[in-house]
Amino acid sequence: MRCARVADVNVAVIGLGLIGGSVLRALAAAGHRVSGYDADPATRATARTAAAQAHSSARWQVTPTVRDTVARAELVVLAVPLPAVGGVLDQLADAGYTGLVTDVTSVKTPVRDLVAQRLHRPPRRLAGFVGGHPMAGRETSGFGATDPALFAGCAWVLCLEPRDTSMADWLELAALITPLGARVVPTTAAEHDRAVAAVSHVPHLLAAALVSASADDPLAGTLAAGSFQDGTRVAATRPELIAAMCGGNAEAVGPALDAVLDALRQARAAVDAEDPIAALRDWLAPASAARGAWPHRPGTARELPARVDDLLALGRAGGWVTAVAADRRTVTAVRPLRPAPA
Amino acid sequence: MRCARVADVNVAVIGLGLIGGSVLRALAAAGHRVSGYDADPATRATARTAAAQAHSSARWQVTPTVRDTVARAELVVLAVPLPAVGGVLDQLADAGYTGLVTDVTSVKTPVRDLVAQRLHRPPRRLAGFVGGHPMAGRETSGFGATDPALFAGCAWVLCLEPRDTSMADWLELAALITPLGARVVPTTAAEHDRAVAAVSHVPHLLAAALVSASADDPLAGTLAAGSFQDGTRVAATRPELIAAMCGGNAEAVGPALDAVLDALRQARAAVDAEDPIAALRDWLAPASAARGAWPHRPGTARELPARVDDLLALGRAGGWVTAVAADRRTVTAVRPLRPAPA
Repeated sequence: MRCARVADVNVAVIGLGLIGGSVLRALAAAGHRVSGYDADPATRATARTAAAQAHSSARWQVTPTVRDTVARAELVVLAVPLPAVGGVLDQLADAGYTGLVTDVTSVKTPVRDLVAQRLHRPPRRLAGFVGGHPMAGRETSGFGATDPALFAGCAWVLCLEPRDTSMADWLELAALITPLGARVVPTTAAEHDRAVAAVSHVPHLLAAALVSASADDPLAGTLAAGSFQDGTRVAATRPELIAAMCGGNAEAVGPALDAVLDALRQARAAVDAEDPIAALRDWLAPASAARGAWPHRPGTARELPARVDDLLALGRAGGWVTAVAADRRTVTAVRPLRPAPA
Repeated sequence: MRCARVADVNVAVIGLGLIGGSVLRALAAAGHRVSGYDADPATRATARTAAAQAHSSARWQVTPTVRDTVARAELVVLAVPLPAVGGVLDQLADAGYTGLVTDVTSVKTPVRDLVAQRLHRPPRRLAGFVGGHPMAGRETSGFGATDPALFAGCAWVLCLEPRDTSMADWLELAALITPLGARVVPTTAAEHDRAVAAVSHVPHLLAAALVSASADDPLAGTLAAGSFQDGTRVAATRPELIAAMCGGNAEAVGPALDAVLDALRQARAAVDAEDPIAALRDWLAPASAARGAWPHRPGTARELPARVDDLLALGRAGGWVTAVAADRRTVTAVRPLRPAPA
């Protein structure tokens, strides 16, 4: 397959924290013309200094306003927290921007709703919107923590809504992002939000519950070791960040938390069984096998038609796209090798 | 304070897995005469080869029978899994052993019960029993993974039962173990079992529940990242090991799991609140502060009378013993510096 060579795209990145700053640097390193903006003057200054020190082939611009940043852009990457997305969309409209927009927010349905409200409001319309979410969190934050290699091997969701999303826009973005080493995962906003509720948001709530259940026992704090340390690590995250993430996805987090509560009630019944060791062993076995097989090894790369149904089926099977053909009619797709069901 | 110099104690270690083998090597390195036995001939051969290669001042013996191992022992360390403890206690009685016994099993009440049954059965009596639990788990197992420095800085519970435990026996063991760098934590079997249920056993059940709630969704498996990886790490442990640990402590694990379920039901209610972000933030804040302050920094070392009540109060406060005075009338005690309650 001859892959799409996407170069010299004019990209504007709004929000230069860990993710936005890393997107800026990764795209600049890939040969695109990138400009960036952050509402915080200190962040802008840091990003500007870093640009001056970067290799001449991988520099970016930092501009003092959103309007300047998007003036020549064909693509805007929104890398601001969810509460700021609506305001920035309004600033884009005020600046007369009518190109393609993507974002990197960790919840996709609310962003989709915000965009839909504005797309239907005359007179300005965005040319297109494709929701995105690179799964590349880190303990650190801020432009100082950015890394152009942050996305190598990481899953990067690009939302594909059967009715709303232009296939051409989706492929354009996939062709831009796959050269960064990301595994582009096609899925809908709703399916994304359900999946991250289960594997990202609910784990934060479990970690907090585990801490709170023993927080008043100093002896427990002294005897706590590896399983407590790992199981509660993310509970130290700032509570407003976890609350925004879980509360912003409440519709999906509720059922995902119910599923864990159901599983724990089964465990509780096993503890009360006549032979708790045997009952717990039976309850634990499937999870132990599933965790032992995770993360799943990538299967063989295959060509796949660049069609909505095929791509969404790929995403549902846990697969991802690693390249887009030059003619945009096929993509290179990889499915994970999952163990055969017991 | 002049510390007790305990040297040249004759110690027998029964069971030469990770913990037993590390106890054997640590005590040999500390200058004691140590002999070891394991029911598995291959493990005995490995331990014998390692002894021949050890520094001449830190060698141990490996014997072919329990009887040979305990022939000259003043102290026996039981380092076998809980289901094997009763059988080894019988072998000790058959061998005519009447000295001090400790163990390293992760649940303390069942071991205490097994010993009590045998202590009250004529004609043989053990001179004394002090339940123990070094909190030094590792991913690896077997004699090949042993490490004489495994206990440096780790909490090592020594059970102190107001009615049963001889203070002299307890201090003898504490004086033997503190030079290995362990933090000797005085507590009762019941208090130990409650604390480890909350910080060690229940975390294994939560990890398994988290895996099982998303095991059927390939997309979730692909989007899972750091919080899932850490929160489920211990779920890959062999299910029979987790089942034996949790099921063997069912009486304490039940209430500890109930406490986590209560906390999660509060989280569930917050997700359903009119303003889920604000409700979750309020729910999350105490756990975030508690996890941020853990592990607690050690406070200043102080002398403490070697009395049951003082030692149990120390353990309840999350404190530990780092040395025993030569005259056995005081110990050096450290309390953790906990943050002031909000």
